[in-house]
Amino acid sequence: MPLQLYYAPGACSFVPHAALELAGASFEPVLVKLHKGEHHSPAFRAINPRGQVPVLVDDGQAITQIVAIGLHLDARFPQAQLLPPQGLARTRALELLAWMNNTVHPTFTHVFMPAKFTDDAAAQASVKAHALTRYRALLEELEAMVTTRSGPWLGGASPGLLDAYALTLLRWGGFAGIDPTTLPHTWALAQSFAALPPVARVVERERLQLNVYQPAAA
Amino acid sequence: MPLQLYYAPGACSFVPHAALELAGASFEPVLVKLHKGEHHSPAFRAINPRGQVPVLVDDGQAITQIVAIGLHLDARFPQAQLLPPQGLARTRALELLAWMNNTVHPTFTHVFMPAKFTDDAAAQASVKAHALTRYRALLEELEAMVTTRSGPWLGGASPGLLDAYALTLLRWGGFAGIDPTTLPHTWALAQSFAALPPVARVVERERLQLNVYQPAAA
Ligand SMILES: N[C@@H](CCC(=O)N[C@@H](CS)C(=O)NCC(=O)O)C(=O)O
Ligand SMILES: N[C@@H](CCC(=O)N[C@@H](CS)C(=O)NCC(=O)O)C(=O)O
Repeated sequence: MPLQLYYAPGACSFVPHAALELAGASFEPVLVKLHKGEHHSPAFRAINPRGQVPVLVDDGQAITQIVAIGLHLDARFPQAQLLPPQGLARTRALELLAWMNNTVHPTFTHVFMPAKFTDDAAAQASVKAHALTRYRALLEELEAMVTTRSGPWLGGASPGLLDAYALTLLRWGGFAGIDPTTLPHTWALAQSFAALPPVARVVERERLQLNVYQPAAA
Repeated sequence: MPLQLYYAPGACSFVPHAALELAGASFEPVLVKLHKGEHHSPAFRAINPRGQVPVLVDDGQAITQIVAIGLHLDARFPQAQLLPPQGLARTRALELLAWMNNTVHPTFTHVFMPAKFTDDAAAQASVKAHALTRYRALLEELEAMVTTRSGPWLGGASPGLLDAYALTLLRWGGFAGIDPTTLPHTWALAQSFAALPPVARVVERERLQLNVYQPAAA
């Protein structure tokens, strides 16, 4: 039975989507239109009761959580080196992956969907503004890590999960009014990553524009 | 060089703290008094610029992030089976670990430290109340998983990272006004886990009371 990936264009599901193509996996991409609320449909809730993408279905098993899906794909396609295979390099990559997932990603959720955190409109505006300041600082922290990395990619020699996540988080910054070109090393990394043929297929399938930043009208 | 673990009593550092004892590792526990602000001291910031516990120091390398520390310890002490060693059982354990770390844990942070999310006092109260409702629902979701688990522990045959995290999250619920005995399977699991001799040493060293729930005065 082939793998299936439930994804939404531009969402965090880009991370396993890119990983599957990098690994040369045969899989069926299944589009979930978040803007049409398809993640709340009974059909999708039957697959993931939490109503979120990504979901990887492997041999009939629905697996959620980017970190778990990423490690599952890493174990299934070891030759792809989606993460460094062992030792301190692997630990450092997992540290960065976990931080992207538990800190940077949720901070963007506060910018993009503040209603997940309070029902009060004034409080939502306050949460959003606070998160935007933090998000910028977090992307700067990421930029410092990208700048001082030891190999061509964030995990070293091979492009993988970390580069896909960095691209996603930087791209989201554009929606939050952060010009990606002001984070030049991360921007260059995202462009190089997007240009890899397997990743370019994902960018094409998701119809992604890498730089979505719109300068505020003067 | 022995391992060192920077921990704070009752904090999420309990997860690697219990894991180290379960693995029979020789390590130096280093107490960081969060209530005295020691995590903001220059000495601690030199170890972790983000000013958070846990930090595992292995061979002079400071490693942060519970997920990365947990996987590092799992690779270093495979015989301890801190996580299931392979296959779907491992993926499911990583899925639960990631969800505890990126969803349940941060929801408690909104209850306990709403000032991390907005500077406005009214917005903080609103964020806190919203998070408390979510936290209770998340502990109920955890209770369902604990109830239907297939082995004696959350990872199956061996006690490990998931049980330590479940204990921590349930215990935090007590501070948020959630009576742990209303989640009876998780409460029983936490008590059995705390009674294991290696874990009992951690409970003793951190001087933890498992049930911190105080019924509101009538
Ligand atoms: N903890 C999940 C988070 C997944 C997540 O944030 N998914 C978002 C897209 S980036 C989603 O489906 N959002 C729809 C919603 O939550 O309503 C993971 O790490 O995979
Ligand atoms: N993302 C980190 C979170 C660590 C964390 O939340 N640490 C808390 C204790 S549970 C802390 O040090 N809080 C002090 C603070 O943030 O001021 C991880 O997964 O390890």
